[in-house]
Amino acid sequence: MSDAKNGDGAAVVTLRWHDAPGHGRLDMIDQTRLPAVFDYLRYDSAAGVADGIRTMVVRGAPAIGVAAAYGVALEALRLNAMHALNGIEYDAALDSAVRLLADSRPTAVNLSWALQRMQQRRAAHAQSHPGSGSATLAQALLTEAKSIHAEDVQINRRMGAHGATLLADGARVLTHCNAGALATAGHGTALGVIRSAVAAGKRISVIADETRPFLQGARLTAWEMVQENIPLTLITDNMAGHLMAQGEIDAVIVGTDRVAANGDVANKIGTYMVAVLAARHRIPFYVACPLSTIDLSVPSGREIPIEERAASEVTGFRDTQWAAVGVNVRNPSFDVTPADLVTALITERGIVHAPDERKLRALFE
Amino acid sequence: MSDAKNGDGAAVVTLRWHDAPGHGRLDMIDQTRLPAVFDYLRYDSAAGVADGIRTMVVRGAPAIGVAAAYGVALEALRLNAMHALNGIEYDAALDSAVRLLADSRPTAVNLSWALQRMQQRRAAHAQSHPGSGSATLAQALLTEAKSIHAEDVQINRRMGAHGATLLADGARVLTHCNAGALATAGHGTALGVIRSAVAAGKRISVIADETRPFLQGARLTAWEMVQENIPLTLITDNMAGHLMAQGEIDAVIVGTDRVAANGDVANKIGTYMVAVLAARHRIPFYVACPLSTIDLSVPSGREIPIEERAASEVTGFRDTQWAAVGVNVRNPSFDVTPADLVTALITERGIVHAPDERKLRALFE
Repeated sequence: MSDAKNGDGAAVVTLRWHDAPGHGRLDMIDQTRLPAVFDYLRYDSAAGVADGIRTMVVRGAPAIGVAAAYGVALEALRLNAMHALNGIEYDAALDSAVRLLADSRPTAVNLSWALQRMQQRRAAHAQSHPGSGSATLAQALLTEAKSIHAEDVQINRRMGAHGATLLADGARVLTHCNAGALATAGHGTALGVIRSAVAAGKRISVIADETRPFLQGARLTAWEMVQENIPLTLITDNMAGHLMAQGEIDAVIVGTDRVAANGDVANKIGTYMVAVLAARHRIPFYVACPLSTIDLSVPSGREIPIEERAASEVTGFRDTQWAAVGVNVRNPSFDVTPADLVTALITERGIVHAPDERKLRALFE
Repeated sequence: MSDAKNGDGAAVVTLRWHDAPGHGRLDMIDQTRLPAVFDYLRYDSAAGVADGIRTMVVRGAPAIGVAAAYGVALEALRLNAMHALNGIEYDAALDSAVRLLADSRPTAVNLSWALQRMQQRRAAHAQSHPGSGSATLAQALLTEAKSIHAEDVQINRRMGAHGATLLADGARVLTHCNAGALATAGHGTALGVIRSAVAAGKRISVIADETRPFLQGARLTAWEMVQENIPLTLITDNMAGHLMAQGEIDAVIVGTDRVAANGDVANKIGTYMVAVLAARHRIPFYVACPLSTIDLSVPSGREIPIEERAASEVTGFRDTQWAAVGVNVRNPSFDVTPADLVTALITERGIVHAPDERKLRALFE
């Protein structure tokens, strides 16, 4: 696991593209097996990438967006290699691959944002290079996916620089789920803010909710912080309130899967509970949020689709099943934190205090 | 597991005493292995029982109290069988056993309450039967332990009858941890209220927090409800807020390990978070609480000792360890819910709405 060691998360290479003449390959860290096993899985088709997103080999809204973009590029390359397809068949097959990727998970808007960018590039290419064939289109789509990939790291560094100003030296920061390098193309959103604050010389300690049922906090956030010697204390999700009541938490920073036009924040299940408790204890609640995660087409959190996942995630963990046999299960994977509980959004264009629709729309002008 | 099946929890025999001439044995369901394995462990000494309490073979404040009382009786019988002891040695050995039991867990006050009752019986016996010898004392202590055991079930049934009036037909009731037959001598405190409401013909459905790290909700509450065909839906601890926001929870009922004189409630870690959320959503928050759990000697929740348990409980579950190696851990086993978040205490002497010190003291008059 030496190639994952790094000073600022930049070497946690969540997604890795391999160029090869006429085709290519996407490698993704298998996040279902971390931290016990650090290994990459290899993908050469949109169907494969969609499956990797669905089964959470890759997770985290920005990372899902980058993976989906590469998924489109992989499919364009693959279809190009199938010389028997005519133009209409090629277009239909690529459309179908985009739909497959779009349907792989419902909540993170970065997925549809990235696919939309890929479709725009496709349309622009058709206009600027009429009749140029599928080979040049595939290369154009790959270039676009690489841009989305590279931009994500830069965006996270800019968010980190803005967000770091919000954290005092010595701050004890609670985070939920994993909004780190593993959830992005690198550096991270919420953990990116922490990394940037540490890089600026501040002594930050992290309190991580374990984040049942998938345990992103215990497995992924803890792993990232241990790698970089940033002090981390792991708790179960039901301990955050007690620690706040004891005065042991100074700030909360989380990532997000979609922010509605009114500032409501969809994020990993349990985020809402943390936000309610932070408000009660007058602890600032920050959301690290690239513009690609803001969905102005959705008026409020009520309209954000909330994914429900399999019961077996709740009745145990992986092959270890502990619940009584015969129980019903609910497994909503996300919840919505109303905008009035959000102290500030941290974006690559700056900090938005007390977010509302007017301020969010202004970000895009 | 057929002898655990029952109509109202009365046949979940958490603790079982076996009489034998001159000695005896306490059997306790091994709650660390439920629901996968239903089995009893056998105890014949105070040290054994103290170990069973510490390792959570038996847990739940009322059940711990009953177990500790039998622990004293077992030790009195065992010491009596050691004919070599003189009176002073016998007394010192019994004192030491009581201290061992008292130190087995710190938060549940039922433990010291039950031990105090045993010590009072011991003192009364010494006064009424001077020089009668250790055999009659041991029998007197066993009789007292059996009384505590039998009274607990009756108290739970009375609490159940009072509490059932608070639940409407069709109510969807959230509970945290296990305050059921397994946490008591039978029927349960919080689940006792649900059992009594069901027995009164109300259609109640239960939503159970899994209750990390020991998973009492997923393993024990779910098991009890499945046995009796009371509909139960299992969730992870971080989902309760989302379900409340969706309007899917009508009431919360929990047990408690100690209630301070001002009405502050110590209970399983996470209870405080549920109470804060219930208040935000105007959902009644009820605490089922026998008088033995009220500690008037402690002015407020601040003075209640909060047990911290082993890190390995948080970094995984049993032999399955999933957290990144090298993390720090916090593992407070309880938290304190301030009295102003408690809609009502349900006691065997009736319902105490908006509990405060005056109302709690009045219960004992």
